[in-house]
Amino acid sequence: MFESAEIGHKVSKKKFKEVVPTLRAALLDAQFELNAQKKSSVIVLISGQDGSGKSETINLLYEWMDPRFLTTLAFEQPSDEERDRPVMWRFWRHLPPKGRIGALSGSWYSEPIRRRILGEMSVSRLDAHINQINRFEAMLVNEGALVLKFWLHLTNSSLEARFKRLEANPRTAWRVTPEHWESLKTYDQLQDVAGHVLRMTNTTWAPWTIVEAADDNYRSLVIGETLLKAMQMKLAVKDTQTMPPAPAVAVHVDARNVLSELDLDQALDKSEYVDQLAFWQGRLSELVRDARFARRSLVCAFEGVDAAGKGGSIRRVAKAMDARAFQIVPIAVPTDEERARPYLWRFWRHIPRRGKVTIFDRTWYGRVLVERVEKLCSEADWLRAYGEINDFEHDLSDAGVIVVKFWLQISKKEQLIRFKKRENVEFKRFKITDDDWRNRKKWKAYEQAICDMIDRTSTGTEAWTLVEANDKKFARVKILRTICERVEEALDKDAAAMAAEKKDKKVGVPGKAGASKRKR
Amino acid sequence: MFESAEIGHKVSKKKFKEVVPTLRAALLDAQFELNAQKKSSVIVLISGQDGSGKSETINLLYEWMDPRFLTTLAFEQPSDEERDRPVMWRFWRHLPPKGRIGALSGSWYSEPIRRRILGEMSVSRLDAHINQINRFEAMLVNEGALVLKFWLHLTNSSLEARFKRLEANPRTAWRVTPEHWESLKTYDQLQDVAGHVLRMTNTTWAPWTIVEAADDNYRSLVIGETLLKAMQMKLAVKDTQTMPPAPAVAVHVDARNVLSELDLDQALDKSEYVDQLAFWQGRLSELVRDARFARRSLVCAFEGVDAAGKGGSIRRVAKAMDARAFQIVPIAVPTDEERARPYLWRFWRHIPRRGKVTIFDRTWYGRVLVERVEKLCSEADWLRAYGEINDFEHDLSDAGVIVVKFWLQISKKEQLIRFKKRENVEFKRFKITDDDWRNRKKWKAYEQAICDMIDRTSTGTEAWTLVEANDKKFARVKILRTICERVEEALDKDAAAMAAEKKDKKVGVPGKAGASKRKR
Repeated sequence: MFESAEIGHKVSKKKFKEVVPTLRAALLDAQFELNAQKKSSVIVLISGQDGSGKSETINLLYEWMDPRFLTTLAFEQPSDEERDRPVMWRFWRHLPPKGRIGALSGSWYSEPIRRRILGEMSVSRLDAHINQINRFEAMLVNEGALVLKFWLHLTNSSLEARFKRLEANPRTAWRVTPEHWESLKTYDQLQDVAGHVLRMTNTTWAPWTIVEAADDNYRSLVIGETLLKAMQMKLAVKDTQTMPPAPAVAVHVDARNVLSELDLDQALDKSEYVDQLAFWQGRLSELVRDARFARRSLVCAFEGVDAAGKGGSIRRVAKAMDARAFQIVPIAVPTDEERARPYLWRFWRHIPRRGKVTIFDRTWYGRVLVERVEKLCSEADWLRAYGEINDFEHDLSDAGVIVVKFWLQISKKEQLIRFKKRENVEFKRFKITDDDWRNRKKWKAYEQAICDMIDRTSTGTEAWTLVEANDKKFARVKILRTICERVEEALDKDAAAMAAEKKDKKVGVPGKAGASKRKR
Repeated sequence: MFESAEIGHKVSKKKFKEVVPTLRAALLDAQFELNAQKKSSVIVLISGQDGSGKSETINLLYEWMDPRFLTTLAFEQPSDEERDRPVMWRFWRHLPPKGRIGALSGSWYSEPIRRRILGEMSVSRLDAHINQINRFEAMLVNEGALVLKFWLHLTNSSLEARFKRLEANPRTAWRVTPEHWESLKTYDQLQDVAGHVLRMTNTTWAPWTIVEAADDNYRSLVIGETLLKAMQMKLAVKDTQTMPPAPAVAVHVDARNVLSELDLDQALDKSEYVDQLAFWQGRLSELVRDARFARRSLVCAFEGVDAAGKGGSIRRVAKAMDARAFQIVPIAVPTDEERARPYLWRFWRHIPRRGKVTIFDRTWYGRVLVERVEKLCSEADWLRAYGEINDFEHDLSDAGVIVVKFWLQISKKEQLIRFKKRENVEFKRFKITDDDWRNRKKWKAYEQAICDMIDRTSTGTEAWTLVEANDKKFARVKILRTICERVEEALDKDAAAMAAEKKDKKVGVPGKAGASKRKR
């Protein structure tokens, strides 16, 4: 893996001085064009052994390029706000917008490599994480980003020589810390683990460039030229579509589907409703105040036919909780900061901390529903969204977030009744717009999109709950009950896991305790 | 203060049911109009004794209004990211955009009141903070926000009765915690402190509404009706300008001013430059790695005539630091998320954590420079900006942020030389635009704006450093030296304060130690 980076490459001071002005001019041109086009962002990962010149490289980028469109994203110890959320959240929150270059010091590779070296992460867990990273990077590239990954490589002896050289110079001595010397001891392990990780993540869409880092001039030129070429190639591509043509979505030959099979008229009478609503609201209010919930969080996703009663249901759920515990996030037109980033960014930014709840009123499924039907994005975009959404929800539940998704369905007839009623009740008038009438005409197209969505995104832990909503009372109770059951299930699982761990410890079976730990 | 809220107001269930539908319809209309206009945000503070019905009130707003345009901002314990920044940062970061209502549970009032009751804050410190709050709220109102503050009041005995009532009902019993009962003991102190704070912050632009909270229906209606009236009044005002006409800015009767008095041609020869640059870069690199700097942070603000060399200077400053320690923030056109919030929001969001550095390439002074000269904002807007900016910088340095501001000045002749040179050097061409030539024609108008800015915003701790920049070498060294001196001064001050405190403790003079603590 690293053989080509142990050749002893060198660039003379003279040659460096000759080449750099042209390179700088070209880099600036490319950067300027990138910013003018506002079509892609550039994400540059500078990785490698500590002391191999990572921060020098980033400083060099600042010297060569226009710092106005360049940002360093330094990922050190996560903050408590970051620790309280899925691991990928901190990277999502700092993604550079289109038109900008983000230079990453520390990245999604740092933690897995470090933890594997320390033995805190099993090989299989590492491989699962690598898979997650590959899918994340594919998403970035599909969203128009240019992802460049550099690994700065030095042999053990040249690393030692470099540390000594830096220490000898009073101006650079501070760069060498005791940790640097310490890291030489785990050099071989790092090569092993990094070699494995690099091989597994050296994808066609986000390839690694391994750079021999012993000679500063050589290192700088390789990175500069690679960055330039990649940017020029990216800028030359007019069509950002990189996905293969779409596989077909489900074909329906009869009128039966998951929606038509629902018994939409299930109902509750008033007194039953009052009792059950109070019961489940009380239960939910207890559950989110349960001490165990402080290690979890809850995401409720509401989708449904227009006028199916999302708003009313959300209010009943909210009412069970203290206003300080939840956020309701209505999804409308994205802002320009949101449009400048990958599609899922605007949902990631609202992911709750541990102990908190976010209720999404319409969700990330917009892409495979309204955006698909109204042709607001390309077919390739909404087709790849199924996979990206599954990954997203998997990231959430993997981190302890309980994800509950509702599809509220009413009949076409019931919708008409509600539309007309809304037009007549004063404080409901704002709820009915021309859009609603327009959407109603596309009932069939939406039905197809809904069924495809359910088929493709109802996975084990993140299953859809279809809610028969012709009777609002029935729907609200079903929603509250489902949320309670899902939260209860998660909390019980945690309790069981803790009990098992405790028991293992008592009997003194360290292997088993380790295994159950790895599972979490 | 609270007399009118101890009358025993009640609203019958029957009357409540009669009034609410009309109120709801009107609230929804107002909310809808607010969102359509996108001209103002509404900030509703729900304050008062714990257990007085604050979260019930917020839940009620959710029930009555459209949750899509309503957000609860719950300020509980600050996170580490928040603790590492000025106290007001956490409120800035969550300010609702125009068109939206933010309901605050916990606010900028909670901490000062709590700390005063505990005796952790002196009366004079509290009053200074109250002053800061009044100026902050004035800024919000001047930026178009509607700021409504509700204080829910209960007598000691009705509070006790309320707790007992809530505890008796299994569905609400959880709302009453041991802390609630405990808080009854400090009831009188709270009335005293809150009474003082409310009187001092009951401004015409952001008045308090004190609400008798014993009867739920009464409390709900008062808040609902007040909110409605205030929103209707706000929506009826076509001109958002609320400031009195501007006082005149400085009149110049001769050609002499702070800029003309500068000796712009001060210069350094090459070898002196190389030595001094290296010296001060080395010094800065040490200073930001100094253990004491971990409790401070640094904001460098760069402004200057076009082509004065801001970019080059910033790169020399950046080069002295590890790329992970600083951010360069170029200020360009605001995004729509920024435009939807008060002017200073887009700077607050980049305030560094402790131990970190932010370099602003152009700054918040844009409002009194380019926006003034190009008439991009009203005269009243840029006139009040002087005060707001002073408050902003004061907030920063009060929290330990070292603020260093540079104005880079070159002569008109030197500018022409540089413009022409830029057009000829390949990798500098992007730096020269039509705007630059246009601005040059307005040299006089800019000069007036610059002089006014320096006169009005060069305060004790946040003084401007004017940089004579015809010679780039001289300018860069002056900038680096100034930053070093300012950081050194701050760190020495901290060391002296710590030493004094230690000494006080040793000699056992508690009064003195307390005094020096209060000063911080």
